[in-house]
Amino acid sequence: MAGREGPRPGGRSARVQASVHGAVQALMTRMERAEITIPMIAVEAGVTPSTIYRRWGDIQELLADVAVERLKPDMQPVDTGNGGKDLLAWAEQYAEEMSSKPGREMIRDVLAAQDGSGAYQCCNFTKQQIEVIAARAADRGEAFPEVDAVMDRVVSPIMYRILFGEAPDTAHVARLVSGAMGLVSKAPASV
Amino acid sequence: MAGREGPRPGGRSARVQASVHGAVQALMTRMERAEITIPMIAVEAGVTPSTIYRRWGDIQELLADVAVERLKPDMQPVDTGNGGKDLLAWAEQYAEEMSSKPGREMIRDVLAAQDGSGAYQCCNFTKQQIEVIAARAADRGEAFPEVDAVMDRVVSPIMYRILFGEAPDTAHVARLVSGAMGLVSKAPASV
Repeated sequence: MAGREGPRPGGRSARVQASVHGAVQALMTRMERAEITIPMIAVEAGVTPSTIYRRWGDIQELLADVAVERLKPDMQPVDTGNGGKDLLAWAEQYAEEMSSKPGREMIRDVLAAQDGSGAYQCCNFTKQQIEVIAARAADRGEAFPEVDAVMDRVVSPIMYRILFGEAPDTAHVARLVSGAMGLVSKAPASV
Repeated sequence: MAGREGPRPGGRSARVQASVHGAVQALMTRMERAEITIPMIAVEAGVTPSTIYRRWGDIQELLADVAVERLKPDMQPVDTGNGGKDLLAWAEQYAEEMSSKPGREMIRDVLAAQDGSGAYQCCNFTKQQIEVIAARAADRGEAFPEVDAVMDRVVSPIMYRILFGEAPDTAHVARLVSGAMGLVSKAPASV
């Protein structure tokens, strides 16, 4: 998908993408996503429907592309001066954002696309945030678990519960984080 | 959703449901799911389209209902004589089935429905399987982790990786299981 690989900034392709993404987001504020069609998006974006079909194939892929773009983190994880606290602050915010109505809709759009590259990219955004926290912890000389272990122990249970049950409460998120941090501490994990 | 609450077996409602579910599954073997429409399903099932619209609302809800039905486990977890081994055998099979093409399609159908009750029911099917393993372990006098902890430590990472990345390999599944079992053993978890 050209859109996902990121077109050259400022080029014609980038302008088309920005315009189509903007059109989708504008339409979403005015109507239910199930009512939105590619011809409507084309009118709103000022491009031909065939431009959209050529580039995205179908509306599911386009919605997934827009959702991936919106799921891209727009800030670095908060720096609290301690790796475990950074991870807790990040995980609380992640659980809150992903379980919100727009968060759930974005995840659903990403997972509905046949092409799994959007879901893969979302997972990478999350990994990058954990890597930032891990690198800061390393700079401070603190022990911090492997990024992969944090994905399994903190990120996965939060996402599973949001998708298949009820969003985890803050006490649950705190237990997940302290469990992951317990991997690198000699002392038993505190709750 | 009447279909999900399970109509009285043998009643008219149950016969309609069975016929419509059968029609969806038959059509899925002959064409891409994206091509399947409610009028087609109605013809195949020998009911009117309005029967389907009245009962399921839209095709997403119907596909989710069919997927939930197919995701219902058709066997008890294998009894190996040991809780940890039961869990390992179950987790390996779960990872394999859910990461298969039909498994992924069923999960996608369940998650695509606006109504989240199908996803909730799938999570319950999984919990029930773990509960069977936990109850057998208790009968044998073995220590076994809380079902909720198994959901967080074993089920969630498997599902997260299937949805957002690559399916976990058997070594990874084994590490997840031994990590969860380590919660109740004094000895360090073996990998």
